[in-house]
Amino acid sequence: MATAQSSQAIGRIFKARSVAVVGASGNPSKFGYMTLDSIIRGGYEGQIYPVNPKGGELFGLKVYRSIKDVPEPPDLVIIIVPARFIPAVMREAAEKGTRGAVILSAGFREAGRPDLEEEISIISKQTALRFVGPNVQGINYLPNKLCAMFFPVITKRGPLSVITQSGSATAALSEWAADEGLGICAAINLGNQTDLCESDYLEFLAADADTKSMALYIEGLKDGPRFLEVIGKTGPRKPIVILKGGKTQAGQQAASSHTGSLAGSHAVFEAACHQYGVLTAVNLEHLYDCAKALATMRKPKGNRVLSIATSGGMGTLAADEAEPQGLTLPPLPDAFIDELRSQEITPFANMENPLDMGVITAEDFQKIVMLAEQYDVADIILMNLGDPVPGMPEITQHLLENTDVSIAVSYLGGGEQEKIGRMKMLEMGIPVFRTPDRAMRGIGAMVKWTAYHRRCQGLKRKPIENRREHFNGGEKFVLEPEAVEYLRPYNIRYPEHGMAGSPEEAADIADRLGYPVVMKVVAKDVYHKSDSGGVAVGIQTRHSVINEFSEMISRVRSKRPDASIEGLMVCKEAPPGLEVIVGAIDDSIFGPTIMFGLGGIFTEVYRDVAFRIAPLSRQDAEEMIREIRGYPLLEGTRGKSGYDIQQLIDLILRISQLVTERPDIRELDLNPVRLFKKGLTVLDVRMFVEERV
Amino acid sequence: MATAQSSQAIGRIFKARSVAVVGASGNPSKFGYMTLDSIIRGGYEGQIYPVNPKGGELFGLKVYRSIKDVPEPPDLVIIIVPARFIPAVMREAAEKGTRGAVILSAGFREAGRPDLEEEISIISKQTALRFVGPNVQGINYLPNKLCAMFFPVITKRGPLSVITQSGSATAALSEWAADEGLGICAAINLGNQTDLCESDYLEFLAADADTKSMALYIEGLKDGPRFLEVIGKTGPRKPIVILKGGKTQAGQQAASSHTGSLAGSHAVFEAACHQYGVLTAVNLEHLYDCAKALATMRKPKGNRVLSIATSGGMGTLAADEAEPQGLTLPPLPDAFIDELRSQEITPFANMENPLDMGVITAEDFQKIVMLAEQYDVADIILMNLGDPVPGMPEITQHLLENTDVSIAVSYLGGGEQEKIGRMKMLEMGIPVFRTPDRAMRGIGAMVKWTAYHRRCQGLKRKPIENRREHFNGGEKFVLEPEAVEYLRPYNIRYPEHGMAGSPEEAADIADRLGYPVVMKVVAKDVYHKSDSGGVAVGIQTRHSVINEFSEMISRVRSKRPDASIEGLMVCKEAPPGLEVIVGAIDDSIFGPTIMFGLGGIFTEVYRDVAFRIAPLSRQDAEEMIREIRGYPLLEGTRGKSGYDIQQLIDLILRISQLVTERPDIRELDLNPVRLFKKGLTVLDVRMFVEERV
Repeated sequence: MATAQSSQAIGRIFKARSVAVVGASGNPSKFGYMTLDSIIRGGYEGQIYPVNPKGGELFGLKVYRSIKDVPEPPDLVIIIVPARFIPAVMREAAEKGTRGAVILSAGFREAGRPDLEEEISIISKQTALRFVGPNVQGINYLPNKLCAMFFPVITKRGPLSVITQSGSATAALSEWAADEGLGICAAINLGNQTDLCESDYLEFLAADADTKSMALYIEGLKDGPRFLEVIGKTGPRKPIVILKGGKTQAGQQAASSHTGSLAGSHAVFEAACHQYGVLTAVNLEHLYDCAKALATMRKPKGNRVLSIATSGGMGTLAADEAEPQGLTLPPLPDAFIDELRSQEITPFANMENPLDMGVITAEDFQKIVMLAEQYDVADIILMNLGDPVPGMPEITQHLLENTDVSIAVSYLGGGEQEKIGRMKMLEMGIPVFRTPDRAMRGIGAMVKWTAYHRRCQGLKRKPIENRREHFNGGEKFVLEPEAVEYLRPYNIRYPEHGMAGSPEEAADIADRLGYPVVMKVVAKDVYHKSDSGGVAVGIQTRHSVINEFSEMISRVRSKRPDASIEGLMVCKEAPPGLEVIVGAIDDSIFGPTIMFGLGGIFTEVYRDVAFRIAPLSRQDAEEMIREIRGYPLLEGTRGKSGYDIQQLIDLILRISQLVTERPDIRELDLNPVRLFKKGLTVLDVRMFVEERV
Repeated sequence: MATAQSSQAIGRIFKARSVAVVGASGNPSKFGYMTLDSIIRGGYEGQIYPVNPKGGELFGLKVYRSIKDVPEPPDLVIIIVPARFIPAVMREAAEKGTRGAVILSAGFREAGRPDLEEEISIISKQTALRFVGPNVQGINYLPNKLCAMFFPVITKRGPLSVITQSGSATAALSEWAADEGLGICAAINLGNQTDLCESDYLEFLAADADTKSMALYIEGLKDGPRFLEVIGKTGPRKPIVILKGGKTQAGQQAASSHTGSLAGSHAVFEAACHQYGVLTAVNLEHLYDCAKALATMRKPKGNRVLSIATSGGMGTLAADEAEPQGLTLPPLPDAFIDELRSQEITPFANMENPLDMGVITAEDFQKIVMLAEQYDVADIILMNLGDPVPGMPEITQHLLENTDVSIAVSYLGGGEQEKIGRMKMLEMGIPVFRTPDRAMRGIGAMVKWTAYHRRCQGLKRKPIENRREHFNGGEKFVLEPEAVEYLRPYNIRYPEHGMAGSPEEAADIADRLGYPVVMKVVAKDVYHKSDSGGVAVGIQTRHSVINEFSEMISRVRSKRPDASIEGLMVCKEAPPGLEVIVGAIDDSIFGPTIMFGLGGIFTEVYRDVAFRIAPLSRQDAEEMIREIRGYPLLEGTRGKSGYDIQQLIDLILRISQLVTERPDIRELDLNPVRLFKKGLTVLDVRMFVEERV
């Protein structure tokens, strides 16, 4: 369905001025009771029409026997009846003139009834009745005071919107935000996403003025390329943080290439988010902290943090988290220190960053922050409280009104003062965190997002449309001489070579190429040539070529008696250099994806690799090269000069273009690619393409 | 001071039946007021004697003008007067017959008055008045209801004891424990540790029946070897968890060896804790969660976890944290699944581990846990709640009484039921965590500690006494031929070699050794020989040796014109193999410490190294080899046979013995050590010893 239509449909659902609750019940243990109760307790101000064939009255409201009997077409129907009755309810609602539904009931695909799910999907398309669910806890949209969710009832309105695939995550994130005063704008449980899906909600909330940041918990995606398209537009404008569950379960994709076995869905997912400007979280509290920071903090100019602590220990804990978050604690300028000393705030202060002031008052904090702004000490100021400090909310509010600095607060060990202060500050939209390291992670998220925001200015991304659905699942190994032909149109260097069927043929090729040469077996069932004795390097003479020909064939035959050997490839040997791997895989979620790393143990044991979704921008290629830990090897260390990174970037971009233009490529390893001080060459190509039936 | 004496002294302080509060005040903004108020609000049941020259009455108690006037010798004096008056107060108290003090006041070493600190130390030794502090928030010991701490007043008694170098950390950990129902046994703020120190408190609490686990926040150690001795005895018997602040600040020790530059205090600290059976935490909440688990969980038999969740999402998040914590989620036995199905608890259950049951009742949990025990499904059962589940405290209590399984609970998204349930369960001593991943980290801590406990049975460790105090700070580079002599008595293999002063001498040595040979420059100011062109390998003929001699000298001279070259070493070249690094450094906290890693980029870029404090047990050496990520390279991968790990263990143990017996060795790199399928040889020795003045 078209994007704008879905967004409008969600708007109609969330902003409904009248709702019918089909399956409303008087039994407090039923979802039909709980949901109606939630709508009422949530303070909904529109018309509520409980519907139940039994009729009567509930919560003082007249119960209608069917939707037909409701006096007006309700803007929204909430459906909480057994799954088998739902098609009829949907038709009735559509006939009445309703255009939106939230289907809470389970009993579809997840319960072995894909047919029923297909049926409601068709009804939706036929009748234009768009819906949330089925199999959801519900939705809560506080700007309309509409809590159509059987649990929990959250009425604390705030800047955070929550989208999750788990009712528990919806509840936990909403409760945390409500309990500490931050509040939420919307909470959406995804369920089966038969009609409306994660990308639709993201798009709606991106345009929703009350939503300042979005926290997502997901385990998969309904449509990867559409998701990329939406976050590519939204991510850099309104912050999104995602926690993806199922890191280990999803496991590695079954794959024959190195790239494939290293990909796994999680590493690729993380890379896709980073590339498209969306933050990822490592756990539920981290998700919450990042979303809180992104919803409340001012955009900082840079990554310099000043920590002003009432406690040396808390300053230390903040400092320990700086480097992992890409933050710096700049030294304090002398003029600032002098000025601070002259204010005689405390005799025991430690004039370094983190600033350890000992026990000081809220007014002292104000003085120090104003001074820090005046001397441009840092881009972000962390007020790092480890004691009860009365009056912080007022002072912080004052600072926000009278300075331009980006502020965050960490507050612990403060007893009742802390609890009151935290609540008041979060209600004012001031980011308060529970420990110094959580504060630093929040600040880190804000700094990272600001960089995304900057990076993505003007950058138009066009993800590749989903090609996966046309793929029948079979793949075929491509013999190396053929695979090399795929590279040729993209000007990718591969050594001069020839294909030999006999020792003499091999020797003639070698004579023509010049020595030394490399010989490699070509057989459609030998993917790992070296392991089968199918590679020989440094062959110096015609005589050795002739000997090696028969030796290699007998080595391979002894290890792989079933191998159907097509011949041997003879290649001109390349000069020494640094070996890396460049690969590509057709990711099951995002489509063609590029991998880069150092070869061998660095990829296999240290997993020091970087991924990007194709097509890549030049900046993507540059960043993925710099991202690996082994980057110093490429750049040159200890006075050794580095390798040709510009050509490596070009190679990566050409491979990105290749896999974008050739949808039949499933997996591709250029392993190794040998880098020189100037230039590079691919030394081996392993490729799998779609098997056509 | 003798250990047992310190422990007794702490016992007298913590269990005091009468306390004098010197510096008691009527002004609520003074620590003298707050502390007296805390003692009263804490519910202290012994005699309280406020002391203040002004006399009068406070909180309905008579105020004495001096300690002399107090009607009995108080068991304990709490001192909160300006630092300069403290020596007099201590003398007076000692004269009165008091043997213990808590000195809250600051104004000593930390404020530029080491003289005053020295004075109170001397008074303590002269008078046998032992003391906590100075410069502390105070102590709280709940078995005696003695809250001699100006903030916070915690009265919720529980199994957790807290020792910290930060008042804020003391307050935060105590408040968290009190707020959620767990409670604390003791809270101790370390301060300057002029007399009693971290190891003394650890020893006291190790013997304290009410303390079930100890959480420490520290930034340094007063005495490293004594600490090792205490944790070596205590750690495996009563769980200790430590968070060490200052990871990045402490920085790397200035060092000329690889081992030295890689050590830094934090990596060594972590290794020491692991080796001696103490857990380390990554942040304050992790510290709390681990200590909670260790204080409350039953010792599990193994690392198999069954997660029973009311929510698929929460099960997924638990599973994602299993591998990082060294836990497994075993598949469910068929018989268990059949039995569970027959109970018809829910139609939608997902019969895998993590078990996703959907919304179930507390009674359902009971059935499933009993069944899981019957079928020995796992060693630990995580009841993973993502919804309000009434009745959990009673059911969990029942399970603890009627099963032997080790249980943990994760509870979130449960609204009021969750808050009530969490409090009740923690009051009963049931470990409840705030998220599934925090629960898994708690479980992981318990499993790890159980392994420590098992490993350390019968193992007697003898740390080396502190040699650091005799070290004047200067160190001297040892020429390689001399350094090799240090190794000789320990039977450490080094290639046959000779020292040559002329080309002909070099050639004669080479002729005698046999070709190929390696030549190395010997100069006391050239530590990095390769970088200065001072190493040549694979020299095949007498002629080449003669040529290389002058070439090497001129290369080194051109790079290091100031080098004072003593000659060249000629060594027999070793066969190829795998190169590793074995090193040692005299750590500033723990003394001689051994490092192991793969050489080159693996240590420099990937920092894939392991440390152990000398002396090492054979198991220590084995574990440190297995600990590095690159271990598969040693073990052999992809059908390649491995290297001689037994000889490597022997080498590490010999180096441990060497540095234990030779206190003059400051830094030592055996880099590389070349491993063969059978045997090994050291190829290069870089050594720094103490410079004697």
